[in-house]
Amino acid sequence: MIPIEEAVGAISAANRIAIATHVSPDSDALGSLLGLGIGLRAIGKQVALLCDDPVPVKLRFLPESASVASSTDLQPELFIGVDASDPQRLGACSTDWLSSGIPVINIDHHITNLNFGTVNVVDPQAAATTEILPLLLDGLGIVMTQDIATCLATGLVGDTRSFSTSNVTSNTLQVAARLVEAGIDLAGITETTLHRRSVPILRLWGLGLVNLTLDSGVIWTAISLAARREIGMRDSGDIGLSNILISAEEANVAAVFTEQPDNRIDISFRARPGYDVAGVALSLGGGGHTQAAGCLLEGTLEEIVERVVPLLKAQAQPPAQKE
Amino acid sequence: MIPIEEAVGAISAANRIAIATHVSPDSDALGSLLGLGIGLRAIGKQVALLCDDPVPVKLRFLPESASVASSTDLQPELFIGVDASDPQRLGACSTDWLSSGIPVINIDHHITNLNFGTVNVVDPQAAATTEILPLLLDGLGIVMTQDIATCLATGLVGDTRSFSTSNVTSNTLQVAARLVEAGIDLAGITETTLHRRSVPILRLWGLGLVNLTLDSGVIWTAISLAARREIGMRDSGDIGLSNILISAEEANVAAVFTEQPDNRIDISFRARPGYDVAGVALSLGGGGHTQAAGCLLEGTLEEIVERVVPLLKAQAQPPAQKE
Repeated sequence: MIPIEEAVGAISAANRIAIATHVSPDSDALGSLLGLGIGLRAIGKQVALLCDDPVPVKLRFLPESASVASSTDLQPELFIGVDASDPQRLGACSTDWLSSGIPVINIDHHITNLNFGTVNVVDPQAAATTEILPLLLDGLGIVMTQDIATCLATGLVGDTRSFSTSNVTSNTLQVAARLVEAGIDLAGITETTLHRRSVPILRLWGLGLVNLTLDSGVIWTAISLAARREIGMRDSGDIGLSNILISAEEANVAAVFTEQPDNRIDISFRARPGYDVAGVALSLGGGGHTQAAGCLLEGTLEEIVERVVPLLKAQAQPPAQKE
Repeated sequence: MIPIEEAVGAISAANRIAIATHVSPDSDALGSLLGLGIGLRAIGKQVALLCDDPVPVKLRFLPESASVASSTDLQPELFIGVDASDPQRLGACSTDWLSSGIPVINIDHHITNLNFGTVNVVDPQAAATTEILPLLLDGLGIVMTQDIATCLATGLVGDTRSFSTSNVTSNTLQVAARLVEAGIDLAGITETTLHRRSVPILRLWGLGLVNLTLDSGVIWTAISLAARREIGMRDSGDIGLSNILISAEEANVAAVFTEQPDNRIDISFRARPGYDVAGVALSLGGGGHTQAAGCLLEGTLEEIVERVVPLLKAQAQPPAQKE
């Protein structure tokens, strides 16, 4: 049982509340932080909204996102962590409050959650932390306004990639239905959260796709540091290309090799359902899930491709043909 | 009011029923045809499932899709058209039955529906025809099985692009929640319906993205017939590239120019919300919606790009700067 009543009791007893979310915040982190924060302010609480990192540009459409900060003068009587499975993920902004002895409510949906709170509102069945929050808001008598619903829907859409992940349940969709009733622009939220990218990213996709190779059920491509610099891309993060490659009907396993400075190659692996790339990633010192994994290796692009592709081919055979 | 009772009455009175959907069937067309057909068979009706065109390969995972045909020996007592706004869209397989004098039930969600049936179950508020069908199935006492729910969900996911279009309502999501309760694999349906494409299409995307141009809020690319042939793509249909281009943060209007045989250029236009490409398409002899339109022009790629891009630039200025 999720202890909603205990959480309601702890919140009702406090006037000054700090809410924090995890470093490198995504849409569920910020949707949870802001949705809950706006709700608590609406019932008269003084609320500090904390995050070590700034709100990403594309999530600044979220109401009250300008009030997220990395520290606060508020002396909170209660601390709430949202969408973080352990205290470390909550970053430096939370360290003092977590060790101050005030009650801690831990609201999260990760199955790996360490239950670090005084009250742990943790539901691994939920597809997003924002899927859990309506229960708490209802318990507190907070009206589901359009602003709150916009924040919660952004978390849902982001974590489920628009209701397309395998952890979407009937409840996820019922919560979404309720948020739409509150008057949100779901199409706009989806477009902003999932379907906006820069022209340099599109150019890199182009380069990666033009140079793709398909062989024995494996599809892969490599992006050199020089190409990335020529296009004007500084950051080396995931640009979504591996997700595009694994959409190929002809492939069961996909990999994107991205050259980094200092003779290192970042590899992003993807597998179709029924196939597994976690083992390969793990054997190369990386990690991840069955369907999405990654690792970082030393060497040139050519060397690493030559070393890794044969490992992937072994994973890309239809199950009936495997040993 | 949608006359569900009349439709239930007409279906209850008939034993032999022909159901047809529109030519070039998409996921909503086939999801409606098969979902309703499986349901009617479950309550003992003899059902013919009609469509002029074969089921596209990627939709052959739909239960009973192998029983769709372009003609039937069944002498139906009742004809049902699904997802078609007018009789012509139902194709040659339907002509005889539409003029035979038997009752016709017209089930559709297009606002342009001509109400050509004896009973018209038409709801333009529905995001897909499959969103309407649960009402009818309930009226007939048909149990929502996993097979039926799979068909209906495929229609919902296809027509709403995974719940991301602006016509998604609270009801759309409530229907989806109910279908998930019936035990469907929503993630699998979404992947198969929306996120599978061939390697030649990925290569064409690459070519289009490598050669894109961004200027004054317009993003465009051109694909020559020679390039398409080299990649091994025969068909000239929409490969989804215009949807990718309009995802660029820097652009308000997008166009893909695709060279066709016989000195013709197919152009696919896209606009961000708040911008309009319907006018340009119309002025060039084409048509479409505000956000998505197209036309076919005579000329070389270079000539047509030079002629059309200035028209697009005029549409790509932020509203405040327009006259």
